[in-house]
Amino acid sequence: MTSHLMSVAERAQLAMMLEVCAFPKPGNVDRCHDYSNTRLEHFLASTIFARPALEEAASGKGRIGEIIGHAVRQTSVHNGGNTHFGAFILLIPLVYGGGIEGAEKAIVKTDVSDAVAFYKAFALTSVRINAEDELDVNDPKTLNELRERNITLIDVMQHSAANDMVAREWINGFMLTRRGADILHQIGPGREAIVEMFLTLLATEPDTFIIKKHGREVAEQTMTKAREVLDGRRVLETFDAECIDAGINPGSIADITIAAIFIALGEGWEWDS
Amino acid sequence: MTSHLMSVAERAQLAMMLEVCAFPKPGNVDRCHDYSNTRLEHFLASTIFARPALEEAASGKGRIGEIIGHAVRQTSVHNGGNTHFGAFILLIPLVYGGGIEGAEKAIVKTDVSDAVAFYKAFALTSVRINAEDELDVNDPKTLNELRERNITLIDVMQHSAANDMVAREWINGFMLTRRGADILHQIGPGREAIVEMFLTLLATEPDTFIIKKHGREVAEQTMTKAREVLDGRRVLETFDAECIDAGINPGSIADITIAAIFIALGEGWEWDS
Repeated sequence: MTSHLMSVAERAQLAMMLEVCAFPKPGNVDRCHDYSNTRLEHFLASTIFARPALEEAASGKGRIGEIIGHAVRQTSVHNGGNTHFGAFILLIPLVYGGGIEGAEKAIVKTDVSDAVAFYKAFALTSVRINAEDELDVNDPKTLNELRERNITLIDVMQHSAANDMVAREWINGFMLTRRGADILHQIGPGREAIVEMFLTLLATEPDTFIIKKHGREVAEQTMTKAREVLDGRRVLETFDAECIDAGINPGSIADITIAAIFIALGEGWEWDS
Repeated sequence: MTSHLMSVAERAQLAMMLEVCAFPKPGNVDRCHDYSNTRLEHFLASTIFARPALEEAASGKGRIGEIIGHAVRQTSVHNGGNTHFGAFILLIPLVYGGGIEGAEKAIVKTDVSDAVAFYKAFALTSVRINAEDELDVNDPKTLNELRERNITLIDVMQHSAANDMVAREWINGFMLTRRGADILHQIGPGREAIVEMFLTLLATEPDTFIIKKHGREVAEQTMTKAREVLDGRRVLETFDAECIDAGINPGSIADITIAAIFIALGEGWEWDS
């Protein structure tokens, strides 16, 4: 075991790489599946290109909202669209703070400048937002409103938490990230543990990315199917094919999976056994 | 096309990533195939971990033999064994010199200290060498002999060129690297071009890694089969399965493929179309 030789930024890159390679991850891009416009290589290119922002975060200096923006910009240089926006929302504070405890201390210090930087980064992505959202990322008035109301980035996450499980991590102590890392420790070493952890989160949490795209009922059906796979009552590959056919991709749980791998690696979980 | 935003080191990492993902590459680790001890994730982890050595090379400072050693050490932190030794022999001077012309200028400046550093790096890998080799990498006397005879790293490559097509690139102006890049330009953009370029090199050059492991006859049979695939007289997937079953992996042509992708990307070839 030689993970102690890794820098924190490299550990984050390794987590991004291991997540996208893990297969089959029902409905998501993995070693066996591409989307027509977003392919394995796009995720891996983002993993390479995010290094400067991850190193900036690892320095523990600078502002988290801006560093998330840098990561989004550095990884927007290919044609694969947004690959890791949600993952950066989690990874940047976790790298910045050197873990969950440090991330929590860092995010309470975010201010309106972080919120503004974050919304500017958000506007670069095509991440689905709720049409009824009062702080519309595509509305130029939003930045003024953030400033006038002195809204911090943690306020933004609080605002989004009801409908977005990635934002919720910021206000609940990175609960699912912690749980995902614990699951990896329980299962033990090796890449196969990643798929099982992903399925376990999918069976127990409605993926908010699926809810935004397909509604709550589809997210709940997906949970049930994931449970059936874990219980041996449904074939994993069948579930994967069903998700792909219906355009169901559990993108938020994939983001949390990356954060969980990052934490577990830092605690000695071995990917390479 | 946004490759102009990439640093030279990132371009080298992208080349390493694109090569290992390209599939099917008969006999080699790719998106669809692992070896039992060396898997896709090991190649991608090396791609991530090589960044400091690639940045050192991109600075154009330091000694090439030592930087190759740094790359080998930085990527020896996983259990997948040697993944990119041959690729680094090509990439480090190419990154250092900013292309083939610069690499040629740089390698003629190598001296005995480069040769010593290279042999020390070599000893870390389990790369197959010829039993009759007079400069045995596992023999401690070798380093003394290098020093006494004032052997430079380009001398080492000249010495190895007859039996090693990667070493041969150092003394023939990176001829196959150039040819591979030209083939990519001819075929056009997109990841599929990488497999076709790989097959074209495989059909026209006996892979010296195959020769060392299985003898010249097997290498020549592999050339013939690659030609048949290109001519539509053999199914690519069948050829791939045959190579895997027989343990035939064209590792040296894979190394040259990485160098060729690196050069082609720098000349505007688009991977991402």
